[in-house]
Amino acid sequence: MEVRKTGTGGAARADDLVAELAARLGPDCVLSGPEVLGYCRDWHGDVTTGALAVLRPRNTQDVVRSVRAAAELKLAIVPQGGNTGLVLGAIPDQPSGQVIISLERMTEIRSLEPDDFSVVAEAGVILSDLKEKVEESGLFFPLSLGAQGSCRIGGNVSTNAGGINVLRYGMTRDLVLGLEVVLPDGSIFEGLSTLRKDNRGIDLKQLFIGAEGTLGIITAVSLKLMPKVEQVATALLGLASLDDAIALYRRARRDCCDLMSAFEFMPPLAFTLAREAMPDLPLPMKDHYPAYVLMEISGSGLVDVDDLMQRFLEAVMEDGLVLDGVVAQSRLQARNLWLFREGMNEGQAKRGLHLRTDLSVSLSRLAEFVGEAEAAVRARLPECLCVSYGHVGDGNVHLNVLPPSDLSLAEKAEMIAKSKLVLNEVLDRFGGSISAEHGIGRLKRDDFLKRLPKPQADLLAAIKQAIDPDRIMNPGCQLNFDGIW
Amino acid sequence: MEVRKTGTGGAARADDLVAELAARLGPDCVLSGPEVLGYCRDWHGDVTTGALAVLRPRNTQDVVRSVRAAAELKLAIVPQGGNTGLVLGAIPDQPSGQVIISLERMTEIRSLEPDDFSVVAEAGVILSDLKEKVEESGLFFPLSLGAQGSCRIGGNVSTNAGGINVLRYGMTRDLVLGLEVVLPDGSIFEGLSTLRKDNRGIDLKQLFIGAEGTLGIITAVSLKLMPKVEQVATALLGLASLDDAIALYRRARRDCCDLMSAFEFMPPLAFTLAREAMPDLPLPMKDHYPAYVLMEISGSGLVDVDDLMQRFLEAVMEDGLVLDGVVAQSRLQARNLWLFREGMNEGQAKRGLHLRTDLSVSLSRLAEFVGEAEAAVRARLPECLCVSYGHVGDGNVHLNVLPPSDLSLAEKAEMIAKSKLVLNEVLDRFGGSISAEHGIGRLKRDDFLKRLPKPQADLLAAIKQAIDPDRIMNPGCQLNFDGIW
Repeated sequence: MEVRKTGTGGAARADDLVAELAARLGPDCVLSGPEVLGYCRDWHGDVTTGALAVLRPRNTQDVVRSVRAAAELKLAIVPQGGNTGLVLGAIPDQPSGQVIISLERMTEIRSLEPDDFSVVAEAGVILSDLKEKVEESGLFFPLSLGAQGSCRIGGNVSTNAGGINVLRYGMTRDLVLGLEVVLPDGSIFEGLSTLRKDNRGIDLKQLFIGAEGTLGIITAVSLKLMPKVEQVATALLGLASLDDAIALYRRARRDCCDLMSAFEFMPPLAFTLAREAMPDLPLPMKDHYPAYVLMEISGSGLVDVDDLMQRFLEAVMEDGLVLDGVVAQSRLQARNLWLFREGMNEGQAKRGLHLRTDLSVSLSRLAEFVGEAEAAVRARLPECLCVSYGHVGDGNVHLNVLPPSDLSLAEKAEMIAKSKLVLNEVLDRFGGSISAEHGIGRLKRDDFLKRLPKPQADLLAAIKQAIDPDRIMNPGCQLNFDGIW
Repeated sequence: MEVRKTGTGGAARADDLVAELAARLGPDCVLSGPEVLGYCRDWHGDVTTGALAVLRPRNTQDVVRSVRAAAELKLAIVPQGGNTGLVLGAIPDQPSGQVIISLERMTEIRSLEPDDFSVVAEAGVILSDLKEKVEESGLFFPLSLGAQGSCRIGGNVSTNAGGINVLRYGMTRDLVLGLEVVLPDGSIFEGLSTLRKDNRGIDLKQLFIGAEGTLGIITAVSLKLMPKVEQVATALLGLASLDDAIALYRRARRDCCDLMSAFEFMPPLAFTLAREAMPDLPLPMKDHYPAYVLMEISGSGLVDVDDLMQRFLEAVMEDGLVLDGVVAQSRLQARNLWLFREGMNEGQAKRGLHLRTDLSVSLSRLAEFVGEAEAAVRARLPECLCVSYGHVGDGNVHLNVLPPSDLSLAEKAEMIAKSKLVLNEVLDRFGGSISAEHGIGRLKRDDFLKRLPKPQADLLAAIKQAIDPDRIMNPGCQLNFDGIW
């Protein structure tokens, strides 16, 4: 692909291209100039780039026209949903040669059929809007994550989003029944089936889930729905160690019959950090413990979830696995318990630039990994603080490293780079993943490609070549054809 | 690919090729002559073909050598597990130019880690052996299907097998954590991860699940395990209609908190057919009903599954949705209830050649579909008998058509062909799938390709070309490069 660079005549050429796009797609569909910048800033606000233009299709045919126009003008395309990703997958890296195609105006719920336990939604529907509409129909869409008020369902599918309910309902992939995708040649992959079971050979839609827009633009999705959650029991538990937390998880899977909908591990530091962000947050327990678990059981119908939680906690406290616990007695109390989990993130943000990770290892080695990784960081960067927490039931830990607040940005950045190397070294020994749920994007691309075995790399390159031979779809994301290949 | 046909000199050439294979792989790894035929007969015994040889690798390196040898000798490869498939995906269609690679000697369980809820097994492990080994470790592998005493896990993954537990645990795809695959060029895709959560971009392993050996040979798999099922409640219920059965399913999902592990619909004819195969089978209910459901709830730990079933049935009988019911009081009684479901298949087989289908439509339209499809068959082929049953919770129905027993084979075959056209015509109007769980193979290939939209067909062709450019992997299965493309 020809990559355009601004230079002599670049500005004039850019104006021509924008004018040509507006002529083809209608001026209403094309943003340029300063308005573009709002689309080019990442979720954390760490990075802002730019784009030749933002195309804002209203429907699938507009997306087709946008893709064809970009291809003919030799512009690359960066598809974007709610732009809440954490790995720079949805903002351009070559502003002058790239357009963003934003799905934000495709917000129709095309069908919602409670009797089929399915919904068909356009890519631009905001996750929390989708969840609300589904609940109004008496059902439940389980994907739950921090950004749900801003992220869009097309982006969730394109990045195979995770979140707090994965242990019960799986990643987004597990919730997808069908897709509509505009391919790089402008043809439409029409696969919005709502069939629960359909085993007609190779399942092509799987390729687009997690591809982060490198193979096409997801314009609509059909999704599985679940019975509405009618009862939720939420508890915050104090334990002696992460090891015990993992033992508790194993036991809870059996004792609670896989009805757990969340199982979040937090260190004691969680409370300190949360209170830094939300000073008025009431402390839920009077004593302190080396490890905490926020656990939720949820259900519907004839299963008594509160009773289940009660009997489970009695048993594990009698056995000494859980040292102390608070069970929420109201929705408000449950909300307050969750605020610690959320406040912990805000507290970290308040301490400034830090390393955020999203790692996974085998569950049986998770405690050992966290111990070794934190020790390695302490040995090499004793002034940094490690905060390890996350969806431990999935073997997924966010092991973040916070440099001292009073350092300069440059000093912090250097420590972050160093600590990442230290962590990845330990992670590689444990055969772990550098991205349990956030994807690859541009941020993790090089670390990803460096670890990719050759047969996998060859396969990826062959598939990219087969579907997007001109490499117009999100170049630089996941793959790097100027790099190792 | 050059397709070899036997002809003048064919036999001599075949001997040379077999000798060459034996020289390269060791005589122990190569079967030829009459021994081959046992591998070339389909599960129902309807079709027997042949093969130049059967290669029987003992390990992954043997598979690599086998693939390389076949490729160099310009022989195509048909991978085979337990050969229990129902769509002719694992037996050759060009015997003189094709070798079978049987995974039957790769039966090692490489690791079983209860603390990780995962197992790594070679492709040739028989499903029931795998399930037993897993249960000995205190866990549960949910895939359950009629052929489980013969089918092999590599084949289950390669065909994305379904079965009776899909409504609770998903298809085989949903149970796969990782794969080891020998690719057509002899390289090894090493992806036997046991990470529960790993979101590193495009998920390449998905391509091989359901590909039926057209893109490579699955040599080992890593799988998710679940808590051991400690309690099972089984009930046979009499209802007024299929419509009511579907309403019952919807209600059961909610009331039983998605703890249902089976929900099988059967027509009254089920009992007649089962008793034809098993005359001594005790009739479970004294009255007759227009529709029956075999329902199972299962669980572990602190949830009382028997109590749940009891309370659910009381409620739905009070509401008149269920007219009568028998709850198994022992394992033996539960086994007897399941015998009707299994006996029904045997009873159909005893009536001779018939049309077996494996269709799915949206759950909300299933009853309407079955009504219209049966009426269409009755109108066009009044002498045939329709038997509709199956995993209705998944929208999956086996709508079989039985010609009168006293007709000749040729007459039966003609009726079967006609009834298939009639059914597919109705199915297409309902936007259904011709293969809900059995796959495509060679049997359904033409019906599959005829219905495949062009962008999907182009994508499949491009992927096949990218991964298997010489088309040595299971040619004629799913795809047909001499056909519509």
